[in-house]
Amino acid sequence: MNYRMILYLSGQILRVLGGFMILPLLVALIYQESASRNAFAVTSAVLLVLGSLIAWKKPENKSLYNREGLAVVAVAWLLMSVFGGIPFLLSGDIPNFADCIFEITSGFTTTGSTILTDIESMSHATLFWRSFSHFLGGMGVLVFMLTILPHNDTRTMHIVRAESPGPTVGKLVAKMHFSVRILYSMYVALTLLEVVFLLFGGMNLFEALCHAFSTAGTGGFGITNNSVADYDSAYIDIVITIFMGLFGVNFTLYYLVLMKKWKAALCNEELRLYVFICVISMLVIAINITHIYDNFWQALRYSSFQVMSTISTTGFATANFIDWPVFSQVIIILLMFIGGCAGSTGGGLKVIRIMLLFKIALRQIRTVLNPRAVVMVQCDGKAVDKDVVNGTGAYFVLFAFLLALSILLLSLDGHDLGTTATAVITCLNNVGPGVGEINPSGNFSGFSAWAKILLSMDMLLGRLEIYPLLVLFTCRRNK
Amino acid sequence: MNYRMILYLSGQILRVLGGFMILPLLVALIYQESASRNAFAVTSAVLLVLGSLIAWKKPENKSLYNREGLAVVAVAWLLMSVFGGIPFLLSGDIPNFADCIFEITSGFTTTGSTILTDIESMSHATLFWRSFSHFLGGMGVLVFMLTILPHNDTRTMHIVRAESPGPTVGKLVAKMHFSVRILYSMYVALTLLEVVFLLFGGMNLFEALCHAFSTAGTGGFGITNNSVADYDSAYIDIVITIFMGLFGVNFTLYYLVLMKKWKAALCNEELRLYVFICVISMLVIAINITHIYDNFWQALRYSSFQVMSTISTTGFATANFIDWPVFSQVIIILLMFIGGCAGSTGGGLKVIRIMLLFKIALRQIRTVLNPRAVVMVQCDGKAVDKDVVNGTGAYFVLFAFLLALSILLLSLDGHDLGTTATAVITCLNNVGPGVGEINPSGNFSGFSAWAKILLSMDMLLGRLEIYPLLVLFTCRRNK
Repeated sequence: MNYRMILYLSGQILRVLGGFMILPLLVALIYQESASRNAFAVTSAVLLVLGSLIAWKKPENKSLYNREGLAVVAVAWLLMSVFGGIPFLLSGDIPNFADCIFEITSGFTTTGSTILTDIESMSHATLFWRSFSHFLGGMGVLVFMLTILPHNDTRTMHIVRAESPGPTVGKLVAKMHFSVRILYSMYVALTLLEVVFLLFGGMNLFEALCHAFSTAGTGGFGITNNSVADYDSAYIDIVITIFMGLFGVNFTLYYLVLMKKWKAALCNEELRLYVFICVISMLVIAINITHIYDNFWQALRYSSFQVMSTISTTGFATANFIDWPVFSQVIIILLMFIGGCAGSTGGGLKVIRIMLLFKIALRQIRTVLNPRAVVMVQCDGKAVDKDVVNGTGAYFVLFAFLLALSILLLSLDGHDLGTTATAVITCLNNVGPGVGEINPSGNFSGFSAWAKILLSMDMLLGRLEIYPLLVLFTCRRNK
Repeated sequence: MNYRMILYLSGQILRVLGGFMILPLLVALIYQESASRNAFAVTSAVLLVLGSLIAWKKPENKSLYNREGLAVVAVAWLLMSVFGGIPFLLSGDIPNFADCIFEITSGFTTTGSTILTDIESMSHATLFWRSFSHFLGGMGVLVFMLTILPHNDTRTMHIVRAESPGPTVGKLVAKMHFSVRILYSMYVALTLLEVVFLLFGGMNLFEALCHAFSTAGTGGFGITNNSVADYDSAYIDIVITIFMGLFGVNFTLYYLVLMKKWKAALCNEELRLYVFICVISMLVIAINITHIYDNFWQALRYSSFQVMSTISTTGFATANFIDWPVFSQVIIILLMFIGGCAGSTGGGLKVIRIMLLFKIALRQIRTVLNPRAVVMVQCDGKAVDKDVVNGTGAYFVLFAFLLALSILLLSLDGHDLGTTATAVITCLNNVGPGVGEINPSGNFSGFSAWAKILLSMDMLLGRLEIYPLLVLFTCRRNK
């Protein structure tokens, strides 16, 4: 293990984090919030100094391979979870350290679960930093850092692979660091586009920025107690619904569209399944809840928003789905597991994994019925690599064990079965709300401190897809 | 497909079923229950005649391969589910046909879920047939049939493989039909042993037989409204706890013990894990519920019974676990998924699958951390065949899809989330009770007719491990 390099990059991460805290500091200055101003100024300065000290000396051996890539991502995200929430503590907005960790981990992992009981009492700077953490965590903080650090393609590849979700990582162009820059540019452009649309809907710049950041990272932190429902505007609902859908799509496809390779983008099997699941779920839920609303179109507006919010794992709310029939609730819980496409900012298992798992199940049925048949798992017309197929199956198994273990541990906190189970489901899939105490109108404040840390770990495990964090708990036998 | 042979064996199954109905008929005669007497006499006679007519002409081509083995098992179990409950309908004990199907499917699949609201109002014959259906279904009805039909080892192998649970099927001795006879002999002997122990506990012969049959098949139908709790006897609790544990063990190990191969039996990795999970769960739950009972030993008595009842997927109750802390409830729900050992009469995923899945997850972690490492999945000191490993992973995926789909469909029946989810979990794993409306003191009478049929299908899919039933819904492309 190249520990020096890991240390060096950790210093860089602290510097990046400190640097980004200047943004909420500006917000605090604009809105003249002195407590938040001091809190962000102090934390930013400390992180910049601390980071610079740690990253003072560049290591001679700058190589970084698979294991180091995983380790550096794990260390970076743990650092962010611990230090990112310090300004909340210093400003007094969130006076409890476990709560700060939960809230900012929920931010960076783009989960959007909150322990806040009165969101509107927070300072603008705090609200901005919460939403901005979604934006940073969505595409990946290390991936961002790679766009500003000197290039090294092997290193970049290993870090991107460790931080980006999905069973495989594709390059847009031959050079990995160019790919990363293109990705980030498209990400920023799409976010700005949403800001413009939201401004047209009557939001002020602050509201538009916060909502766009939350949507971009598919996070879900709102800035009002009733999330997007407070605006009660069909236009805003539709804009956010569409953008949640867009940020749940593999960004590689946008690059294909930019390159005018329309056909390749639209024929993508994962995209088709994603659209199919969304449309079917919207229609079925709309029919199931029509009797609650004035008419079918009204029902469709709320069902569409909820479906896109859930499958993209954003977690915004315009209606409280626990008032809907159980059938709709079950669809929503199942959508949490599916999540967005690989290479998007969405969480969950990812649509492509669900597709591969379905094909693995079909292959197994064929194999059992015709033992001599040789059946391949195909995707986009090509046979999928054996390692990717087996890896996807094994990832699902690992995910299931993690889910069971987390629910078991969390049940010690004494909440009802529904709350306990969906708290883990929603955190592990980086969605946001659940049922019971943590329904879209509720929050996670009822959990004890250790339970909040456990759920924070689940969020990190979900966002980083388990493996990076495990590196820290294992030792390599034969170095 | 050798349709003639499938038809012939279906006729034989009807004859076997009709033959076994003579036993409850005798019970009805002894207890002078005229309605039940007539019902069982008529059904038995009709099945014997119908079966004999269908199986009149032996097919010339008696060969039976993989696909036919699966198909004949599926057809046989569907026939049993439809015809097995007719006496309940004719005697008026269960006046609704969907209820009859649910009750007898729950019997044959050794689930033990019931739609009865007042079990004690049933005739002795009905109670006997319910419990006896557990005994028949436990080791397999076709497997029984093979012990009386002319021998053909290939045919026997394919049927046993299709009907017996677990990822692989082992032979005890070189000849498959001898293996089957030895298995059934040990099964009957162990059941009779339990009858003797229960008689010593003060049960009369009828009670002892019914409880022993229910335990042997790991079914769980009781003959009183409060299940085993009605006896309120520590001796009976302990006897049944031990026998539930014994019937959850792979019967191959008992053969090894009979052959004095103690070491091979006791070193079996699946057995060790099974015992480990049981002991840990008993202790942890006992500690968790001590405050509810007089002392730790009292708590241990109830926790032990509940743990063995759940992991063996029997479903007997001496306490209502929904009154226990959520932590204990979660352990019990997780035990439902684990189930007994392969080659036992228990349901669930089977301990060996959980073990293999855990090793698959570990292998995946090692592979991701050290991509160049080649890691094998081992069991009992030997590398497990690649097809068995991949097949186990794929079975789990298929099981998860089936679980999700069933919960989704059942949620249309409008019960609360907990009831809906655990109804499917308990039926698919052949356990019996769940939480909510279907807690150990509740029952399945609240579901509508279609929901009962859906749950009956889940029980069959769980008992036969999915594949056989799928044969009926697929057509072979290249014959």
